[in-house]
Amino acid sequence: MTEGLAILTSGGDSAGMNPAVKCAADYAAMRGYKPWLIYNGLRGLIDDKIVESTPQLLSGILHRGGTFLRSSRSQRFFDIEFRRQAFENLQRRGISKLIVIGGDGSFRALNQFYTDFGVPFAGIPATIDNDIAGTDYCLGVDTALNMIRQSVDSIRDTATSFSRAFVIEVMGRHCGYLAMVSALACGAELCLTTEIPYDLEKIGAKLKHEIKHEGRDHIIAIVAEGTKMAEYTTRYINDAIGMEARLTVLGHVQRGGSPTVHDRIMAYKFAIAAVDSLHAGQTNAIMVYRDGTFGNLPIHTVVDSKYQIDPSILRLCAPLCA
Amino acid sequence: MTEGLAILTSGGDSAGMNPAVKCAADYAAMRGYKPWLIYNGLRGLIDDKIVESTPQLLSGILHRGGTFLRSSRSQRFFDIEFRRQAFENLQRRGISKLIVIGGDGSFRALNQFYTDFGVPFAGIPATIDNDIAGTDYCLGVDTALNMIRQSVDSIRDTATSFSRAFVIEVMGRHCGYLAMVSALACGAELCLTTEIPYDLEKIGAKLKHEIKHEGRDHIIAIVAEGTKMAEYTTRYINDAIGMEARLTVLGHVQRGGSPTVHDRIMAYKFAIAAVDSLHAGQTNAIMVYRDGTFGNLPIHTVVDSKYQIDPSILRLCAPLCA
Amino acid sequence: MTEGLAILTSGGDSAGMNPAVKCAADYAAMRGYKPWLIYNGLRGLIDDKIVESTPQLLSGILHRGGTFLRSSRSQRFFDIEFRRQAFENLQRRGISKLIVIGGDGSFRALNQFYTDFGVPFAGIPATIDNDIAGTDYCLGVDTALNMIRQSVDSIRDTATSFSRAFVIEVMGRHCGYLAMVSALACGAELCLTTEIPYDLEKIGAKLKHEIKHEGRDHIIAIVAEGTKMAEYTTRYINDAIGMEARLTVLGHVQRGGSPTVHDRIMAYKFAIAAVDSLHAGQTNAIMVYRDGTFGNLPIHTVVDSKYQIDPSILRLCAPLCA
Amino acid sequence: MTEGLAILTSGGDSAGMNPAVKCAADYAAMRGYKPWLIYNGLRGLIDDKIVESTPQLLSGILHRGGTFLRSSRSQRFFDIEFRRQAFENLQRRGISKLIVIGGDGSFRALNQFYTDFGVPFAGIPATIDNDIAGTDYCLGVDTALNMIRQSVDSIRDTATSFSRAFVIEVMGRHCGYLAMVSALACGAELCLTTEIPYDLEKIGAKLKHEIKHEGRDHIIAIVAEGTKMAEYTTRYINDAIGMEARLTVLGHVQRGGSPTVHDRIMAYKFAIAAVDSLHAGQTNAIMVYRDGTFGNLPIHTVVDSKYQIDPSILRLCAPLCA
Repeated sequence: MTEGLAILTSGGDSAGMNPAVKCAADYAAMRGYKPWLIYNGLRGLIDDKIVESTPQLLSGILHRGGTFLRSSRSQRFFDIEFRRQAFENLQRRGISKLIVIGGDGSFRALNQFYTDFGVPFAGIPATIDNDIAGTDYCLGVDTALNMIRQSVDSIRDTATSFSRAFVIEVMGRHCGYLAMVSALACGAELCLTTEIPYDLEKIGAKLKHEIKHEGRDHIIAIVAEGTKMAEYTTRYINDAIGMEARLTVLGHVQRGGSPTVHDRIMAYKFAIAAVDSLHAGQTNAIMVYRDGTFGNLPIHTVVDSKYQIDPSILRLCAPLCA
Repeated sequence: MTEGLAILTSGGDSAGMNPAVKCAADYAAMRGYKPWLIYNGLRGLIDDKIVESTPQLLSGILHRGGTFLRSSRSQRFFDIEFRRQAFENLQRRGISKLIVIGGDGSFRALNQFYTDFGVPFAGIPATIDNDIAGTDYCLGVDTALNMIRQSVDSIRDTATSFSRAFVIEVMGRHCGYLAMVSALACGAELCLTTEIPYDLEKIGAKLKHEIKHEGRDHIIAIVAEGTKMAEYTTRYINDAIGMEARLTVLGHVQRGGSPTVHDRIMAYKFAIAAVDSLHAGQTNAIMVYRDGTFGNLPIHTVVDSKYQIDPSILRLCAPLCA
Repeated sequence: MTEGLAILTSGGDSAGMNPAVKCAADYAAMRGYKPWLIYNGLRGLIDDKIVESTPQLLSGILHRGGTFLRSSRSQRFFDIEFRRQAFENLQRRGISKLIVIGGDGSFRALNQFYTDFGVPFAGIPATIDNDIAGTDYCLGVDTALNMIRQSVDSIRDTATSFSRAFVIEVMGRHCGYLAMVSALACGAELCLTTEIPYDLEKIGAKLKHEIKHEGRDHIIAIVAEGTKMAEYTTRYINDAIGMEARLTVLGHVQRGGSPTVHDRIMAYKFAIAAVDSLHAGQTNAIMVYRDGTFGNLPIHTVVDSKYQIDPSILRLCAPLCA
Repeated sequence: MTEGLAILTSGGDSAGMNPAVKCAADYAAMRGYKPWLIYNGLRGLIDDKIVESTPQLLSGILHRGGTFLRSSRSQRFFDIEFRRQAFENLQRRGISKLIVIGGDGSFRALNQFYTDFGVPFAGIPATIDNDIAGTDYCLGVDTALNMIRQSVDSIRDTATSFSRAFVIEVMGRHCGYLAMVSALACGAELCLTTEIPYDLEKIGAKLKHEIKHEGRDHIIAIVAEGTKMAEYTTRYINDAIGMEARLTVLGHVQRGGSPTVHDRIMAYKFAIAAVDSLHAGQTNAIMVYRDGTFGNLPIHTVVDSKYQIDPSILRLCAPLCA
C-alpha cells in the first residue's frame, strides 16, 4: 500500500489555504505518497471526513478565498478517546503523515496527537494575524492587507469629500501587524497598536495644528482590534480634536477575497517545504519564511516564543503613534 | 456678459457626483452658458468658493469616488443674511442658474433661496439611500450596491469555510432599498428592513430545520441600519438558532469606490436633463428617472411625498423576511 | 408525475447566466414544476446530460462568472435525428417545458425543436453584445461594461504618466453598444463603431489642435471590433496625429468576472418572467426589457428584426465620432 | 541655503512610483534636505520642470497608478549641451543630489550625468519587467502580477463555460518573470518563456491525453511577449491539440492599477534606502532587495550583469514548459 499523506486546514480560515492544499497534494503525489484530504479540520479528522485527493476535487480552487476543505475548532480533540478515533481513521487508510495549515493552536493539537500516536506532521503557518513566532509571513496576510487597502482607499473618497475623520478598526487579535502595514500603505495619519506606545494627546495636538494652519481637512486613523481603543479614539477625534469622526469596524471582510499572487506563490513554497520536511523524516516541524528564505523550526521554538514585528515596520510607524 | 450657470454638490457624497458635475459643466457650455463650480457645497456658496470651470479642473475626475467639489452641511444657510451673501456672490459673477446634486435637504434649502432671491435651480437626486420620492434611481446607488456585493461575497468565503452566520448591517438611513437589493444579489438567507414586516421566529424555525435536515452550514443575514436590529439579530442567530454569529457593520466603505458604468451614464443623463430644464425656463424642478424614462417633477411633489420601493423588489424579498 | 421544466444555457457565455438558472429553477419549483438542469447546452440536450435540480447543485453559484451549466454550439442539433434523440431525453423524464438562456441562434434552434416536437420554450436574452432586437438589455452587458471600465481606467494611469495614446478594441461583434457606452463612461476622446459614421480626419484635426494649443497629453480611443479599424486607428494616431500610440485588444477578459448587482437582479426578473410565460401557456416567447418594463415578444419579432441602439447613447457619442 | 535633493521618475511607468516619490521627499526633508520634484523625467530635467515639494503636491497620490510626476524618454539627454542645461537647472536651485526611480537606461543616463557634472544619484529599480540585475524585486511587479491574475481568473470563467483554450500574452520584454509567476498563480497548463526551453510537442501530447482520458475541458496558456510565440501557440492548440483556442494580448492593462500594499511598502523601503545612501556619501548606487534584505550595489554591477530569475520559480515552472 502506498504511504498516505493527509492534508487539513484548521483554525481561522485565511486566503492562500486553497493553493497550499492543492500544491501539497500534487507535490506529495510526485514524491510517491498517496494524498488524502481531511474535510472540516480536526472535527473531520475525528468524524472520518477523509477522502482520497483527485484532480477533480482540486480543480477550480486556486482563486477561491477561504478554505474549500473547511475548517473548525474542536473541543473533542482535547479528549484522548476522540484522538484515538482520529488515529484509527488514519491507520485504516495507511496515512502516516499529516500536513496542517493553520495557526499555533492547531500545531499544538497535532503535537499532542504525535505524542499519543506517533503520526508526524508538518505545519504551514496560515493566519491573517501574522502572529506566529519564527516566521516573517503567514499565509493570508497579503490578501487581508489588500482587502483592507481597498476599503480604506474607498473610505478616503468620502473623507476627502466631506471633511471628516474616519477611524477604522482592523483585525489581528493581539497583533498590530495588519494595522501598522495598512496604516502605512494607506497613508493614515494615526495608528494605534499594542506594540508601539501611543500618545493621543501628542498626535491630537499635531493634527489640530495641521487643521488650523495647514488646511488639513480629513483624518484616517487605523486602530488594531487588540487595543480596544477604536471607540475611544473616535470620540477623542470628535470631541478633543474637533473633527466629525466615524468608526468603521472592518470585520470579516478582511478574511475573504481571492488570494493575491503573493499568497498563492507563498502557498506553493510552504507546501513544498512541508512535504520535503516530512519526506526527510522530520517530525513536527513548522515551516517558516525568514529573511527571504524558507526553512523550518521545531514546534516548540515556534509555540513557546512570541512573534516579533519587523523592526523596519515599527520604525516607519512610529510617527503615526506619537 | 454670458449668463452663468453654477454647479454644486451638497449633503452626503455619493459616487456619480463627479461625472454629473463634469457633464453638466460641459453641456451647459455647449448650450451657451458660462459654467461655474461651487466648492464645499452650501458653505462654499456663502464663503464664495466659486470658480469658473475649466477643462483642467474637470480632467481626471470621472473615475474618482466621492465629490471633488466637496460637500458639506451648513447651518448658516438657514439664516437669510448668509443666503443674501450667497446671492451676492452669484450676482457679482452673473450666475443666474444653479444645479445642485444631492438630496432632499439640499433641494429644500435651494428652494428657500429661490423664494428669497429668485435664482432658479435644477436638482439631481444623488444619495446612496435611494430614498427620494418620484425617482426610481438616485446617483450612487449602483456603486454602493456593488461595493456591498464585493464585501458580502468576500464574507461568504469565510462563512462557508467555517460554518458561521454573518449579520451584515448596510446603510440606507430609514430606507431598506440597499438592504433588499444586496440581500437578493448576494443570495442572503434573511433580510430585515422597515418596509417589510419580518418574523424572526418564523425564519429562525425554517433555518433551524435546514441546518438539521438539509445540511445548511452558513447563514448570511442583511439588516438595514434603519431597523436598529443588527445586534439583536446576531444574538438571535447565535442563541436561538444555535449557529455562531458575527456582526459586520459595513459603514462608509459603501459610500466610496470608483463609480460604476451605470452611475456614470445615469450621471450624464441627469446632468443633461438638468441643464435642459433650466434652459427651458423651469424653476426648481427635480430630475427623475421613472419606468425607464427621464423627466422632472416640481420640487414640492418630490419633497412632500414618500419614496416607494419597486414592488417587484418587495415581492422578491418577501421570502427573506418571514 | 410532476411536470418537468428544464433550463439550459446556450451560445456564448455571459455573466448573469448563473443567477438566472438558479432563480428559474427555484421559481419553477414554487410554481409547481419539477426543475431540471441541462448541462453543456444543446450538446447536452442531445447527449442526455440532464439532471434534476437540487439545492446543492445551485449552491455557491450566484457570484460566479460564466455559466456553471456550461455552454456549447452544436452542429448536430441541425439534424432532425439528433433533435429526436433530444426530445426522447426530455420525454423520458416528463420534461415538457424549456427555458433557454442565450442569444438569437439558440432561440432559433429551439423554435425549430418546437416545430418538430411541440416542446415550448421561453428565451432569456443573454449576450454581452447587447444586440438582440426588442430588448434594451441582455444579461451580462453590465458586467462586461464594468470589466472594460476597470481595464480602461487602468490603462489611463499609464497614458497620463507617459503622454501616450491608447487604442482599445472592445467586443460586441457587429454591435457598437459596448464600445459607445464604455467610451462615454471612461471619458474617451474617440469612439469608432459601425452605427455612427466617423470621420478620423476631423477628429484628428481637433485632437492635433488640442495637443498643440490646450496641453492635451494623452488620448484614449475605443474601437468596436465590428469596425475592424483598431490597427488602422492606432497607426493613424501615431503617424497623422503624431502621438505615440499603442493598441490593446481586450479580448475575453470582457466576458468574465463576477456578475454585477444589476446583472444578478435582471437575471432574477428575466427568470421569473420566463417561468410565468411558460406557465401562462405561451410558446416560444422571448423575454424583453423595454423602457423600464419587463414583457415578452414572439420569437419571430425578435429574430427577424434588427436591434436598435438607445438614441440617447447615440447622441451622447456623436461628438466622439466626428 | 539648505542642500537640495531632487526626485524624478524615468522610463516606463510602474505602480509604486508614487509612494516612492512621496516617501523619498518626506524622508529627505526629515534628514535635512530641501526636497524637489522633477516633472516629465529627463525631459523635465532639461526643460526645467522642477518645483519644490510641498505637502499639497504629495497629497492623495499613494493610491494612484502610474507616476504623477510623469515620465518620458529623452533623446536630447544624450547630448552634452542639454545635460549642461539640466545641470544648470539643478545648480541654480542648490540641488546636489538626485533620486531616480526607473530602469537600467535611466540609471545609465544619470551615471553619464555624474561623470560630466558630478551630481550623484541613487537609483530605485522600478519596472514591471523585473529584469534588473542584482535585485530580486523591482517596484510595480506585484501590482502588475495581480492585474494579470484578475484578467486570467476572469478569462478562466469563460474557458470553463465553453471548453476552450485561451492563450494569454503577458508583458516583460525579454524577461519571463511575469509570465512564469502568473502562470503558477493562475494554475495555467502551459507557460512559454525564453528562460526555460519548451517543447510544445511534448506538452501537446500530454494535454491531448488529458482531454481524451481525463476529462480536461479547457486550457490556459501564458506566453511571455519576449518569445513572440503567442500566435503560433494559439494555432498549435487549435490545430494540433484540437481545442478551439483564442488569443488575448493583455497589453497596458498590466501597467496600471492602484499599487498593492506590497508595492507601497517596498516603495517606502527603497526610498529610505536611497536617501540614506546619498546621505552616506555614496555615489550612483542602485538600491536592491536580495534574500529579504535591502542594500545597494554600484551601478556598474547592476547594468553590466544579467538578471537571474529566482531558481525556485524556474523549478516550479518546469512542468508547464515540457
